[in-house]
Amino acid sequence: MTRLVRSARPPARRSKPAEARVRGNTVGAVNERSDRVTTDGPVRVGLLGCGNVGGALVELLAERASAVTADAGLDLELAGIAVRSTTRDRGLSVDPDLLTTDAAALVDDPSVDVVVELIGGIEPARTLVLQALKQGKPVVTGNKELLANHGGELYAAAEAAGVDLLFESSAAGAIPIIRPLRESLLGEDIRSIMGIVNGTTNYILTRMTEEGVDYGEVLAEAQRLGYAERDPTADVEGYDAGAKAAIMASIAFGANVVAGDVYHEGIADITADDIEFARRFDYTIKLLAIAERHDPDGGADPDGAGPEIGVRVYPAMVPDSHPLASVRGSFNAVFVDGGAAGELMFYGRGAGGMPTASAVLGDLIDAATNLRRGTFRPVPSGPRARIRPIDDLETAYYVGLTVGDHPGVLSKVAGVFGRHDVSILAMQQEMSDSSTGGPAGVGGGTGETAKVAFITHVACERNIQATVSELRHLDEVTDIHSLLRVIG
Amino acid sequence: MTRLVRSARPPARRSKPAEARVRGNTVGAVNERSDRVTTDGPVRVGLLGCGNVGGALVELLAERASAVTADAGLDLELAGIAVRSTTRDRGLSVDPDLLTTDAAALVDDPSVDVVVELIGGIEPARTLVLQALKQGKPVVTGNKELLANHGGELYAAAEAAGVDLLFESSAAGAIPIIRPLRESLLGEDIRSIMGIVNGTTNYILTRMTEEGVDYGEVLAEAQRLGYAERDPTADVEGYDAGAKAAIMASIAFGANVVAGDVYHEGIADITADDIEFARRFDYTIKLLAIAERHDPDGGADPDGAGPEIGVRVYPAMVPDSHPLASVRGSFNAVFVDGGAAGELMFYGRGAGGMPTASAVLGDLIDAATNLRRGTFRPVPSGPRARIRPIDDLETAYYVGLTVGDHPGVLSKVAGVFGRHDVSILAMQQEMSDSSTGGPAGVGGGTGETAKVAFITHVACERNIQATVSELRHLDEVTDIHSLLRVIG
Repeated sequence: MTRLVRSARPPARRSKPAEARVRGNTVGAVNERSDRVTTDGPVRVGLLGCGNVGGALVELLAERASAVTADAGLDLELAGIAVRSTTRDRGLSVDPDLLTTDAAALVDDPSVDVVVELIGGIEPARTLVLQALKQGKPVVTGNKELLANHGGELYAAAEAAGVDLLFESSAAGAIPIIRPLRESLLGEDIRSIMGIVNGTTNYILTRMTEEGVDYGEVLAEAQRLGYAERDPTADVEGYDAGAKAAIMASIAFGANVVAGDVYHEGIADITADDIEFARRFDYTIKLLAIAERHDPDGGADPDGAGPEIGVRVYPAMVPDSHPLASVRGSFNAVFVDGGAAGELMFYGRGAGGMPTASAVLGDLIDAATNLRRGTFRPVPSGPRARIRPIDDLETAYYVGLTVGDHPGVLSKVAGVFGRHDVSILAMQQEMSDSSTGGPAGVGGGTGETAKVAFITHVACERNIQATVSELRHLDEVTDIHSLLRVIG
Repeated sequence: MTRLVRSARPPARRSKPAEARVRGNTVGAVNERSDRVTTDGPVRVGLLGCGNVGGALVELLAERASAVTADAGLDLELAGIAVRSTTRDRGLSVDPDLLTTDAAALVDDPSVDVVVELIGGIEPARTLVLQALKQGKPVVTGNKELLANHGGELYAAAEAAGVDLLFESSAAGAIPIIRPLRESLLGEDIRSIMGIVNGTTNYILTRMTEEGVDYGEVLAEAQRLGYAERDPTADVEGYDAGAKAAIMASIAFGANVVAGDVYHEGIADITADDIEFARRFDYTIKLLAIAERHDPDGGADPDGAGPEIGVRVYPAMVPDSHPLASVRGSFNAVFVDGGAAGELMFYGRGAGGMPTASAVLGDLIDAATNLRRGTFRPVPSGPRARIRPIDDLETAYYVGLTVGDHPGVLSKVAGVFGRHDVSILAMQQEMSDSSTGGPAGVGGGTGETAKVAFITHVACERNIQATVSELRHLDEVTDIHSLLRVIG
């Protein structure tokens, strides 16, 4: 039974006149009102983890304290900060007495009202979050790994306890996407979500696109500058984006999707040739996290099986006219295809200490406000999703290959596509290297090799895989270097 | 005193297991749960107005009813629809018994729980909304004119009654912008909001930009196609965008801004030359609604006057690399510069019956849920804003003028800029008309006229106005055809 009202803590009354809510440096205006503050004492926050985001949150809490009181009638007070080492200098001006290495004790502290988990990773974060929820303490977390793997358990624990579990910062940093999905679009029949949700890979692809440099070169520079991790696997192989896709899919479709459900391809094999071919076809290559709902055919659902969810991360060709194509550098964006609302896009900073801390603070204000009012908002997730196999994907494709320049080669290659029911929309041949003096014609019989790229009409993944597999055995095909999906 | 809990209606308990919330065609999955539905009877909705948006809402309510029950545990039921004529055929399959011409009686009907106002205009909408609020009935409205003129009164009435007044669809149609401002960004120190919030003018400017056609021609075609009203004043003169700017400014800055506070310029004087000059400077011309907070100098505020709000609508040159530049056609977007969150943008359909109805439905679910829980969310507006005079604006400018082609003309023109403390960043001269055989050099002494365009560094509005005024009196200047602001 869902508890909508926490019985332990009666809803507080708050007196905050509408006239006292000017934001910013409004001390004067606000102080004129003697009846402004309000709350029944501070809301005490237990912060778990004080890294990049945690440290920024501590700063932001100090900086915005009076505005939060004026705007939301809340006095947020740091009760303690659980860290691994209490002696490390964090460059923060916090009372050293707030620091503790005993996170569990901080969660248990009866004076702590709300817990903010910014440790990251699965354990001990999972245990601590469950412990807080069981004690009826709302939790704010930005932990995408935890939510993408144990979301179902945590959402159920929050609902059972009748408290908020808020995680706006877990999917796209500062960009409000979870709250719109949970609230604004609750009446909306969402069909798909498509996002650029990893800043490192978008930075790399943007530089490759705008400067024509190779993947390895940009990655090395990004690592030198600290934009990419020394081990970039989680970013470049799409694991980070995959976790975010799982979280967004769970909320958008009300069916629990976990990280392991997400089909992954990374960007390590994207070449300058692919980027150039994309440009000539009027596309931009982006690493996309996609979640789609597939209703049973014809809308009928006699078995009651419900929709299938397709969820995947891969580099794709995005038409230059699509709003996602112009999301540059480390910016993120999430594109939502609502049924009635039509196309929506949410754009902003997907990472960084301060932007992420801003989303955490938004959640914290919400959680504290709901706690005071004795309400909470259940997470609109649901039973385990039925995941659509990647082989059933239907989309357009880009195939880049190197062929021997023999007469009839194009006809042979096209024949393979046709045999597998894949029709070709467009073909381009690599621009000539000007130093070799003129284009190398394909099929002109010069005996050399040439790079060619095809864009197909919408086809089925299993058919395109069969096509590629057969092309590999063709004598005329030297190499198949790219297979990318194309967004329509 | 703010009432956070409605005493007349105790919070309902709702039993909705987490497992029953798969969206879409999930009838089978959902029906397996006998404990799914939940509510204490339906939430009855009184709909005022059944035009484009109201009609779409009726359709959407019918279409999404079972999903709303599954997702939000709510049974939304139309109690009645107030219309001007009960006999007009609306192409809707509604029970004719629901229609009434007596809107006030519908609001008063004790069986009506929530009122949705989609009449538009100020009266009778204002009276009806106040009447509903006074009876403790939450109100959802999309009425930008009403909110931009009487928002303060309505927000106060909602707060006094302790019920929700929700208006997501009033500022940017289907785009969730009001809720992120009210909730997600509540901890955020918002500095400015800049939006393309009028689809008609963006459609016109997009076609002018992409096809090189003149304003009058596109407007006439837009009118023929029904994209522009027969009297296009509200759109093309920026009144519609101005009302939306006032609403967003009030929420973002917590200070009440009304339509009359907004400085307006329309797009009727934008020429193909301006568009072409913009293109050559790597800018795109967009009609922007801008709201900015100006804190007292140096952060000190000895008089307690609080920030000034600058709020204005005008066509401006937006750098091609800015996310707003690629918002095409009838799409809208709102760009928010948060302090900690950094740059955010919200993009989508700003108008249209179904997209707007989708935002109304999101609000309706929220209002009904809060009503059931006995809570509401006060509007974060505040006292009347101090409005910054347009003369104090500081920005870069584009000045387009026609000059006589005499020796020394550029030096004279540049001298006028300099005398008023305006420095020039860039200058371009009109491309030659190829039929006249070659460029007409400015200052080459051919005795003809030439169009030139300047981009200035950041300058003060009063100085640029003084510059333009002096330039008008210069013999060498035939015409000053454009003065546009430039976004940095």
